[in-house]
Amino acid sequence: MSGRAFDELLAYQRETEALAQVAGRLSWDQETVMPRGAAAQRAEEMGAMEAVLHARRTDPRVGDWLAAAEAPDDRGAAQLRLIRRDHARACAVPADLATALARLTSRAQGVWAEAREMSDFSLFAPVLDEVVRLKREEGAALARGGDVYDALLDGFEPGATAAELQAMFDEMRPRLVALRLRALDGPERAAVQGRFDAAEQMRLAREMAERFGYDFTRGRVDQAVHPFSSGSGDDVRITTRTAPDDPFNCLYSTIHEVGHACYEQGIDRALHMTPAGHGVSMGVHESQSRIYENQLGRSRAFCHFLYGRMRDTFGEIGVADEEAFYATVNRLHRGYIRTEADEVQYNLHVMLRFDLERALIAGDLQVADLEAAWNDRFADDFGYPVDRAANGVLQDVHWSVGLFGYFPTYALGNVYAGCLHAALRRAVPDLDAHLAEGEPGAATAWLRENVQRHGGLYAPREVIARACGAGPTAGPLLDYLDGKFGALYPA
Amino acid sequence: MSGRAFDELLAYQRETEALAQVAGRLSWDQETVMPRGAAAQRAEEMGAMEAVLHARRTDPRVGDWLAAAEAPDDRGAAQLRLIRRDHARACAVPADLATALARLTSRAQGVWAEAREMSDFSLFAPVLDEVVRLKREEGAALARGGDVYDALLDGFEPGATAAELQAMFDEMRPRLVALRLRALDGPERAAVQGRFDAAEQMRLAREMAERFGYDFTRGRVDQAVHPFSSGSGDDVRITTRTAPDDPFNCLYSTIHEVGHACYEQGIDRALHMTPAGHGVSMGVHESQSRIYENQLGRSRAFCHFLYGRMRDTFGEIGVADEEAFYATVNRLHRGYIRTEADEVQYNLHVMLRFDLERALIAGDLQVADLEAAWNDRFADDFGYPVDRAANGVLQDVHWSVGLFGYFPTYALGNVYAGCLHAALRRAVPDLDAHLAEGEPGAATAWLRENVQRHGGLYAPREVIARACGAGPTAGPLLDYLDGKFGALYPA
Repeated sequence: MSGRAFDELLAYQRETEALAQVAGRLSWDQETVMPRGAAAQRAEEMGAMEAVLHARRTDPRVGDWLAAAEAPDDRGAAQLRLIRRDHARACAVPADLATALARLTSRAQGVWAEAREMSDFSLFAPVLDEVVRLKREEGAALARGGDVYDALLDGFEPGATAAELQAMFDEMRPRLVALRLRALDGPERAAVQGRFDAAEQMRLAREMAERFGYDFTRGRVDQAVHPFSSGSGDDVRITTRTAPDDPFNCLYSTIHEVGHACYEQGIDRALHMTPAGHGVSMGVHESQSRIYENQLGRSRAFCHFLYGRMRDTFGEIGVADEEAFYATVNRLHRGYIRTEADEVQYNLHVMLRFDLERALIAGDLQVADLEAAWNDRFADDFGYPVDRAANGVLQDVHWSVGLFGYFPTYALGNVYAGCLHAALRRAVPDLDAHLAEGEPGAATAWLRENVQRHGGLYAPREVIARACGAGPTAGPLLDYLDGKFGALYPA
Repeated sequence: MSGRAFDELLAYQRETEALAQVAGRLSWDQETVMPRGAAAQRAEEMGAMEAVLHARRTDPRVGDWLAAAEAPDDRGAAQLRLIRRDHARACAVPADLATALARLTSRAQGVWAEAREMSDFSLFAPVLDEVVRLKREEGAALARGGDVYDALLDGFEPGATAAELQAMFDEMRPRLVALRLRALDGPERAAVQGRFDAAEQMRLAREMAERFGYDFTRGRVDQAVHPFSSGSGDDVRITTRTAPDDPFNCLYSTIHEVGHACYEQGIDRALHMTPAGHGVSMGVHESQSRIYENQLGRSRAFCHFLYGRMRDTFGEIGVADEEAFYATVNRLHRGYIRTEADEVQYNLHVMLRFDLERALIAGDLQVADLEAAWNDRFADDFGYPVDRAANGVLQDVHWSVGLFGYFPTYALGNVYAGCLHAALRRAVPDLDAHLAEGEPGAATAWLRENVQRHGGLYAPREVIARACGAGPTAGPLLDYLDGKFGALYPA
């Protein structure tokens, strides 16, 4: 009887997974190939898919099956845990609140885009105020008496708490600031110079994707306004973009998204189309994209290889030699924008948002005061004032679409990547020799074996602990950053 | 109360329409951009979408709403008619039969592809036998005591009967055969000569799409193995293909699909995402694609314009002059394949299939005897024997996926196109002057006004009757073919 309930539940869930994949494909379509006149119709199509998915997630039969089901083994138990969690979260939020949030955030995203275009926060503030209010309601419904922000965070990083992240960030902050100050004390190093043909950039990007293990028979690379990875199982697609004066944007966006995609492609085939058939959390996902992009892709050894390929492809690129190339790829630089920040300062951007969004959800900060709070904090952390709202409080889409609790997972991903990188170097001592040949396969194979194949079977911290032999701490990342940037920017 | 039932039903139906659009987009994706390794997963995704759609179509609430609903006006009455019809058809087929058919035809399509590859009908016969058996069951369930084949036909051409089509085809057959015999009496005219750059073909095809009124802000043109049109409302996409030695394949496939797409794009915006928001039948759909492709696109006047554009684009194309170009575009030629047939012989291909599939469904012909029956009939109709099964009974995908009753709508579309063309010429007497300038806008505007904008509001025959002042007959098509090909192939 209980075995039958388990089988029925998993079969039902498999259909839900298939439908969720369809919804994901629809988003991919929207960002890459959709005719622009189709936007309103597409919103209706997405809304209908979301309604179907929400109805399935909250279906009372799921509760009945969960009550009756008995897992045949550990994997089955993990599947039940994931379904139970998803069902509980979906059922906790009243249907009218979920609908109101979906409608509001759909509208708010448009308002945000316009406000950013005009660089005028006052246009966005009223709707953001509503979003914050509804997210607090949603968080309270999910928290069931616990911490509201933690309940939202848990949606992206199961098991994480703000207190634990706060402690981690408190440890990171002074060492990051010290590195930043030392690097930006003198004149900034120049970026690469030249015009870089878009088709050649894409060709090189596809080559890098292949080198880093992306399986093109189960995915594709397209151009879009924002780089992203989408889909699970046998259809995992990525996008990238090209800028004529900056080939690194395309190359490293591609390697970053390849990290996300390889995580999904690397999951044990037996888990495909099951609740455990996806990356387990945003933080672990980001650890894969970051380690591919930074610890591997921007390493001294890989830069040796890439420098040669860049010169083969583009000829003279305005960089004196290999050493200068490595320094350029890894230069620390001033800037307002998180997504353009370097390895060191990126985490400072995240901490700023983490503190502000917690204060908003707690009610300690009002939306009316958000822009001033942002500007003060930015000046404190980065040493120069924000020049305009579009470069400050309006730069990220996240809050407009209700993503509160998402930002800290970016920095957590860096911390995880630091831990994994240290363990990887111990496991593959001659890694640099491979990287210098343009062959990251020894690294990606280790990541697949120790992280990716597990999908959602283990909790995020457990994934890192199993791979590294110890739970995640900020130490390895900070040591890596000190070592790398200390050498690049000697005192 | 009854007004509320109507509103609730229409709102429910609107969501169903949105989900059906999503399923259609998924098929487009599969034929154009899907990574090849994703096929099995995609089958599962499509199956999940079909299950959702089937559950909605047979939902008992739809029956309750239909019983209670009162239409506010004629349009509302038409919507109710369409929903009632769809609900009744969906409910008539037992769920286990629908599932068995979906599974079987999914498998049969693969078997057919392999059998065609090997050109061996015996590989396909066993599974086709099962398909025929289940389609007879399905037809019987739909017919509720009426004619089984008519019940299947009704799914593609509401209101049409085999008897009526038979009478129409009996009238067409001798005049088509006479034209064919006269044209193919002497040596065949040559096709166009040369190698034609694929990118230039696509550029010219896109120009033609635009000239024929395709709205690129609400659609896109891609390359695929088979040309098709997909989607409704504000997202109607088409595909085409290029052959290096035959630019007409690409150009006329594009204009054909543009006809289908313009029908969907031309539907009154107020009908979008409603049951009446699609072309009303396969026959009327084909009338639009055919009149764009043949009566307009292959007209003497448009060929004048196209000849100039072809020479601008490709230089010398191995055709002596404009007159020879027109004769080449419209040459009648021997061949085994329906989709490559000319305007005259295409209908003979359809009639062959119509007679054979009716006999299969009636039980008068066994699958074991199908190949011999095909070959005999082909030799009778075309005057030469089929050389191999891949060029004969295995050439079309339709039967493998259970499309019985679909073929005759191709010829019916030609008949409708003949009627519409005669009415169009009366309404726009100076049409040739526009076509010679490469401007079919006067024709497409007339078709939009008189056919396309109505969507599914009127029954197929009524659409033609309203546009032409009289119900459809084969006379106008036959007169058009006699006039055109009689002049091209004088006795």
